[in-house]
Amino acid sequence: MSAKLLSGKPCADDIYRSLRSDPKKNSLYTVGLDDPQWLQYVGSLVKSGEKCGINVKNILLKQGVAPTDMFETVSRACINDDVAGVLLEQPLPKAYAPAANYVLPKADVDCVNPLSVAAMYKGERGFRPATPSAVIRLLDFYGITIEGKHVVIVGRGNAVGKPLAIMMLARNATVTVCHTKTTSLPAVCKTADILVSACGAAGLITSEFVTEKTVAIDVGLSFVNGRSMGDIAPDAYDVCQAASPVPGGVGPVTRAVLFENIMKASESK
Amino acid sequence: MSAKLLSGKPCADDIYRSLRSDPKKNSLYTVGLDDPQWLQYVGSLVKSGEKCGINVKNILLKQGVAPTDMFETVSRACINDDVAGVLLEQPLPKAYAPAANYVLPKADVDCVNPLSVAAMYKGERGFRPATPSAVIRLLDFYGITIEGKHVVIVGRGNAVGKPLAIMMLARNATVTVCHTKTTSLPAVCKTADILVSACGAAGLITSEFVTEKTVAIDVGLSFVNGRSMGDIAPDAYDVCQAASPVPGGVGPVTRAVLFENIMKASESK
Repeated sequence: MSAKLLSGKPCADDIYRSLRSDPKKNSLYTVGLDDPQWLQYVGSLVKSGEKCGINVKNILLKQGVAPTDMFETVSRACINDDVAGVLLEQPLPKAYAPAANYVLPKADVDCVNPLSVAAMYKGERGFRPATPSAVIRLLDFYGITIEGKHVVIVGRGNAVGKPLAIMMLARNATVTVCHTKTTSLPAVCKTADILVSACGAAGLITSEFVTEKTVAIDVGLSFVNGRSMGDIAPDAYDVCQAASPVPGGVGPVTRAVLFENIMKASESK
Repeated sequence: MSAKLLSGKPCADDIYRSLRSDPKKNSLYTVGLDDPQWLQYVGSLVKSGEKCGINVKNILLKQGVAPTDMFETVSRACINDDVAGVLLEQPLPKAYAPAANYVLPKADVDCVNPLSVAAMYKGERGFRPATPSAVIRLLDFYGITIEGKHVVIVGRGNAVGKPLAIMMLARNATVTVCHTKTTSLPAVCKTADILVSACGAAGLITSEFVTEKTVAIDVGLSFVNGRSMGDIAPDAYDVCQAASPVPGGVGPVTRAVLFENIMKASESK
């Protein structure tokens, strides 16, 4: 491996250190369906919350619950006096998706309400989604310039690809978005100064996709034979200038950024 | 000139022909400030409206009007029984910008309400903004394939560049967005199959920015010595495969698409 490894932990630690630990409002409510992956994720937030004095309360709704019950649960969570932020499972099955409309923008720490999304899109004040924010924070932490660089994003989803494109434009990068219909994907990826892969296709990004100038950021996550794998294949690490791995890269920074958002929300009225 | 000229008129005529002329609700209300450019634009809509049975009522507010008065004017316009669509001047001075929040999504024929913007961004049902829609309609009209093509957009504004990027992604193009901070702009533009310029920098796109394979679409508009000029310089037309000029290109199609949206809105409850 010749790539400089852009590990997430020191960046995440740096963010946690900057957070005061006596928030005015000290609860994060999560609302989601009772499925194993969400359960594992929100369970792990409890420990992160302890680092900054945030109590994480996980509200798990039974599969098959009436959508209106979820909407009401979200509304009730938002108006608790002690609540700083409300985190809603994403993506949700279609019938439940409108629950995002009930997350009050001031508590919308992962930017799911359409009003928050429109503010992000237009570059207005408001919370930004945690995962694309984490990509940018990781680059900033390692001193990698974004302005004027060519950022190639593989993936056009609403969770990472699209918001990251908008946020990278706001940071003055030239941005290319690729996806399953892109022709000559390796050639396009090779033109990147910064390559971000967010497709969840294990090992897609091989040495053919990168050059010795590429800074590669892995935001993919797949499970292959019970092991978590990223989009970037091992042989690409031999070529890149620098690379952020999965696991251990953007993931921990995402969580830290989420708590940074919660701490900001805890100061809002 | 060797470029095939992609003129807007036949495309616009085709759209008008497809519109029925007996809408259920038959009014478009426009709301804006009393400035010459807006006045000229909305004045010209009256005649286009006649082609499809739409009465255009222009509400011009005095410069210096209280922002809340504009908000109320927009709200009142939306609830008229005969109103199909409401068109709000864009961009507005900052104090007036929240007027967009008062355009009901069902009447939001140019996609300015944040809820409409979020729906466009996420690819959900709703009206799309007229100008970027017109770019796509013009390409479709002339049989130019978008899927799998590399679309390079020069300009990242909320009116054209950003929504066009999102809408081109939804059409399965690989999309690059460039702007004033882009390094090597001519070289990036040369990689385009379809090049769209929306910066309003007269003559920016010279022969250095294009190849004989480029389809160039001009969405720029500047006034130089009293003449309207586009972003594409005359020498680029000598090189391109095809090009849509300013004036006479996207402009007339934008107006036709706007009336198509109004006719759709006229059928909504």
